[in-house]
Amino acid sequence: MSDIVGRTIHATFFHAPTPEALQCLEAVLAVGADGRIESVVRADEAGFAQACEEADLTLPEGCCVLPGFVDCHVHAPQYPQLGQALDVPLEVWLQKYTFPLEARYQDLDFARTSYTALVEDLLASGTTTALYFATVHQEATRLLVDICLEKGQRALVGKVAMDDPQSCPQYYRDASPEEAVAGTRALIDYVRAHPANQDNRVLPVVTPRFIPSCTDAALEGLGRLAAECGCHVQTHCSESDWAHGYVLDRHGVTDAESLDRFGLLGRRSILAHSNFLTEDDMDRLAARGAGVAHCALSNAYFANSVFPLRAALARGVHVGLGTDISGGPSGSMFEAARMTIAASRMLETGVNPALPAERRGRPGSRVDFVTAFHLATAGGGQALDLPIGRFEPGCLFDAMVIDTRLREGGIRLLAPASPSDILEKILYTANRANISRVWVGGRAVAGR
Amino acid sequence: MSDIVGRTIHATFFHAPTPEALQCLEAVLAVGADGRIESVVRADEAGFAQACEEADLTLPEGCCVLPGFVDCHVHAPQYPQLGQALDVPLEVWLQKYTFPLEARYQDLDFARTSYTALVEDLLASGTTTALYFATVHQEATRLLVDICLEKGQRALVGKVAMDDPQSCPQYYRDASPEEAVAGTRALIDYVRAHPANQDNRVLPVVTPRFIPSCTDAALEGLGRLAAECGCHVQTHCSESDWAHGYVLDRHGVTDAESLDRFGLLGRRSILAHSNFLTEDDMDRLAARGAGVAHCALSNAYFANSVFPLRAALARGVHVGLGTDISGGPSGSMFEAARMTIAASRMLETGVNPALPAERRGRPGSRVDFVTAFHLATAGGGQALDLPIGRFEPGCLFDAMVIDTRLREGGIRLLAPASPSDILEKILYTANRANISRVWVGGRAVAGR
Ligand SMILES: [Zn+2]
Ligand SMILES: [Zn+2]
Repeated sequence: MSDIVGRTIHATFFHAPTPEALQCLEAVLAVGADGRIESVVRADEAGFAQACEEADLTLPEGCCVLPGFVDCHVHAPQYPQLGQALDVPLEVWLQKYTFPLEARYQDLDFARTSYTALVEDLLASGTTTALYFATVHQEATRLLVDICLEKGQRALVGKVAMDDPQSCPQYYRDASPEEAVAGTRALIDYVRAHPANQDNRVLPVVTPRFIPSCTDAALEGLGRLAAECGCHVQTHCSESDWAHGYVLDRHGVTDAESLDRFGLLGRRSILAHSNFLTEDDMDRLAARGAGVAHCALSNAYFANSVFPLRAALARGVHVGLGTDISGGPSGSMFEAARMTIAASRMLETGVNPALPAERRGRPGSRVDFVTAFHLATAGGGQALDLPIGRFEPGCLFDAMVIDTRLREGGIRLLAPASPSDILEKILYTANRANISRVWVGGRAVAGR
Repeated sequence: MSDIVGRTIHATFFHAPTPEALQCLEAVLAVGADGRIESVVRADEAGFAQACEEADLTLPEGCCVLPGFVDCHVHAPQYPQLGQALDVPLEVWLQKYTFPLEARYQDLDFARTSYTALVEDLLASGTTTALYFATVHQEATRLLVDICLEKGQRALVGKVAMDDPQSCPQYYRDASPEEAVAGTRALIDYVRAHPANQDNRVLPVVTPRFIPSCTDAALEGLGRLAAECGCHVQTHCSESDWAHGYVLDRHGVTDAESLDRFGLLGRRSILAHSNFLTEDDMDRLAARGAGVAHCALSNAYFANSVFPLRAALARGVHVGLGTDISGGPSGSMFEAARMTIAASRMLETGVNPALPAERRGRPGSRVDFVTAFHLATAGGGQALDLPIGRFEPGCLFDAMVIDTRLREGGIRLLAPASPSDILEKILYTANRANISRVWVGGRAVAGR
């Protein structure tokens, strides 16, 4: 493994700057000392031959480079229950499995083991940026920040705020609205003052779990804090029939409108799921520049529906993809992208064969592999307001090498294939073994 | 890699003999010279301590044994286009991509390379039995039989019969109904007389592609041949709105009833997809003992719906799972099982958030990981009328070792887990690297 900071690399690069535009570039990229792409010399440009000759690293035939994945929704403490407890309703899942597990993170040894495994595994899976919910705990959440910095992952980390005694168990909650806000502020200060974080590789996030977990006082305080600190905000929004109905009952407006009133809906806000957004909600998100973390795998288990992705994109909403560890049973963004496509097809055609075709589905809902690839990379970057996911000057060099030749990998090139065919095959069939190297900001963070 | 023929193995075994019954056995299994399980001595039985001491092979802590997967629907020649061309309608997919690819198998070098890669990959993925559609070609289909025998995979192989000039391209079809039937008969004879096939590890299958590809004369002839030879039958049934409607138009009855009239619906018939079966159709399948190959991944792209699995099981229909390479973008039966669960949840709740919850889904449709595991193993065995998928005396020892400890694998055991938790985690998170050894009939066929 070698860093690419201050060096040049000659390879085939795939990226999708927009939902429709797949580009395959043979090029030489120069990466600056700050980990950003300084220049891109394409094969059809003057100077390419010389740039090739002088390149510090040339990838062999059969390898190509993709942008690192941007996972817009991860519950870091839930990694130990990945692929478990998926047969129970959300309320049981929270109270019986998830809250007791998250409460264990007051044990820092457990936190260290579990968070280290998670960050290493996500990096090895090509996830160069992750937006993390941690737990309510100060110490364990700081430890997650430390581990991301140590392992080199770009990360946005939030101490979870949840203070409502009606819905949060006594053994696992903020003691008061004040404590929820103060704990969040303390984490922001910790991240921003961290000596190993001078390039802001880790960012703090204001993180009300979701409205049902928080008192209005906490939501108000967190909204003020977000405005004051100018940092990211994450929460869950209109995930299920229950969650959507709960906010309507309590606040008399939709989840999105309520978050907006609390000052929690801005350019750097990411709302997980958001399946039941109304059209007005979508317009509101678009107007604010807020984004949705679409979690297709977990939606199958907990959201009672498929997020109307195509409709949201058409209304100008920023969308990234999330694994939703552990509501979704896979930490791989390849899997998230695949399920995004499949779920969109199932929404388009509908699912119940007992209904006539014309009443079964929702025409015009499908997305293809190009859109899914975009959302998993550049789209996530746009939602997070970060210059990642594209191979363009000024963007951070967060990337992975896909080696298509490996026996233990999943990709088989047995017939002639265009560049677009190859990317499609990678998206559908690559496995972890195919990811042979991962860089964040030009720094090697995983691989052989 | 070592064979387990005529030897004993001490390990933890998981199997699910019925859709609801997950069993975890610590046991010593004795495998006979014929590759069948001779005895199972469980940890709570007399003689276990001695059996352990005398065991030829003892698996280490952290490893366990699952039945090999039974993939009930694979288009062997389509492996080169796995993960490609999923954005086009079925008709375009067939005429523009699939028929031209299948036609290439008159080139035996291409056939050898592609079929070898497929069989090796499926074995390495834990698929010990596969039900294969080959192509219309005699030679290439014989080659697939040879490769399965050489590599040791249990396989059921059909020369595809497709003779209708209305729907099949001139460059890729049987020249006449007589040729379709004669070619099928020749393949049956070849398989049954094969000198390397004395234990019937490979079985021949009567394989009309689907009714729209075949003339009535061919269907009649193939029905007579199936009855005469007593062999398996496979075809596609009521996959999409179009396919279902086509048979209603042409024959005035449903696909299932039409197949029955042609003598193609018996105890050893496997109908791929079958999404649009009526309740009468299901009763007909149950009465005949015919089975369905449920292909959840491919259904998302080509079937306009989710197969009503729970309803079929409730009516007594045998069901196995299929990857449907390459209508489905993955050759892994782990993926097929995962999508079976997710799709069943999406059918249960429905997918369109714009509909009220009570009109959105089909209550009672979900299956859990135990049922999915059963269908991928014992259920497939039952559908194929073969003694596989269970660890019981008399069954063939087709099995795989899952090593949960590997860094490059997908399984992480970070918190206490019951045996059922462990199997659930394996089903959701295992990858190819976790499959450390595979046996078919006690013979080692893949692994380290
Ligand atoms: Zn979540
Ligand atoms: Zn098929």
